[in-house]
Amino acid sequence: MDVEDRLAAMGLMLPAPPAPVGSYRAGLVRGACGALSGQFPIRDGKPAMTGLLGRELSVEQGQEAARLAGLNMLAQLKHLLGTFQRLTGLIRMDGLVASVPDFEQHAAVLDGASDLLAAVLGERGAHTRSVAGVASLPMRMPIEIVVTFALT
Amino acid sequence: MDVEDRLAAMGLMLPAPPAPVGSYRAGLVRGACGALSGQFPIRDGKPAMTGLLGRELSVEQGQEAARLAGLNMLAQLKHLLGTFQRLTGLIRMDGLVASVPDFEQHAAVLDGASDLLAAVLGERGAHTRSVAGVASLPMRMPIEIVVTFALT
Amino acid sequence: MDVEDRLAAMGLMLPAPPAPVGSYRAGLVRGACGALSGQFPIRDGKPAMTGLLGRELSVEQGQEAARLAGLNMLAQLKHLLGTFQRLTGLIRMDGLVASVPDFEQHAAVLDGASDLLAAVLGERGAHTRSVAGVASLPMRMPIEIVVTFALT
Repeated sequence: MDVEDRLAAMGLMLPAPPAPVGSYRAGLVRGACGALSGQFPIRDGKPAMTGLLGRELSVEQGQEAARLAGLNMLAQLKHLLGTFQRLTGLIRMDGLVASVPDFEQHAAVLDGASDLLAAVLGERGAHTRSVAGVASLPMRMPIEIVVTFALT
Repeated sequence: MDVEDRLAAMGLMLPAPPAPVGSYRAGLVRGACGALSGQFPIRDGKPAMTGLLGRELSVEQGQEAARLAGLNMLAQLKHLLGTFQRLTGLIRMDGLVASVPDFEQHAAVLDGASDLLAAVLGERGAHTRSVAGVASLPMRMPIEIVVTFALT
Repeated sequence: MDVEDRLAAMGLMLPAPPAPVGSYRAGLVRGACGALSGQFPIRDGKPAMTGLLGRELSVEQGQEAARLAGLNMLAQLKHLLGTFQRLTGLIRMDGLVASVPDFEQHAAVLDGASDLLAAVLGERGAHTRSVAGVASLPMRMPIEIVVTFALT
């Protein structure tokens, strides 16, 4: 099964990749190195969720937001590469969680994205991860994931 | 026109690259991968602006700070590589914006740096971008940009 | 002297590398690029320090936390590569400092990690650095360092 078949089996499909909202590229390849701009829980061009983890949003809602950001990330990757077959594998994910100062469950929230990538990309979806609880993200969205990858 | 001619046409010139303020390198190359330390709106060795976006600083002031950080980044790159001709192109910019919790215009602020890089480096200045609203940056500066690049 | 001899001369030894707390890898190599997940001041599987810089923790305590995160980073690198001999060198360190909004001494805190890496890895420990003051980190820990590296 390929990536989109696996998504379909989970009841998901790749959305249209969200357009950049500034003077940058959604994705870029230089030699064997690839990077994607920060991906957000955007659906149909609008934030699907807003607010802070630990105040407006529960851990479960944060996981859903992270999963949606992950789905957008996959859409960007497909759009950039044309096919997932060129992907050697993900390298690093930086996860930003807009949250109240005493929030502690960043890792559980980000697993919403990491679990999706493992499910559809297998070993190529493996990645290292960093996490930060930040004061704010654009348009008051709760989650951002930033991914680099290797390709052939 | 080369990079410094383009800067001159915009009324700008490369400053002296700010020195690191700790036990790290301003820039580094390992094989085909290059990285620069976080660059700030520093002028003549001192913060040119301090304060938070959404409190002490307007979006326009933030853009000016980002532009200055971008100019310092170009100075670091020239200092590191000797010539911009070795640069294949930028890869990723992580933009940190010190801001109040309800700030939403991070992207507009960071365009101050991204627009400068596009104007002087052309396609080689293209980059992906991430953004975070953070609680604080060193010396109360409002902006930090962190750039990786590919080189030959 | 090799890396572990140098550590021993400083009265330190590599701990067991902390296990990931989510759906990600502690470290990963893809071609010539390597990355490590964010490392924390964890000792014996538990946070060795909690709290914010500028409130519960002094700069000196932050440096000690950064040093411990750096020691865990070295343990992850050894575990991932088998031997430090495969390491060409570190590239980039992103340092996150959980701190009160008016904290200004991020750089001094992160030197706790950078100084350790320089002492035990020499030129291969040289790295660029970014820094952010963030609202929160997992399990209320004060420091996270995120490192990429090149290898042969």
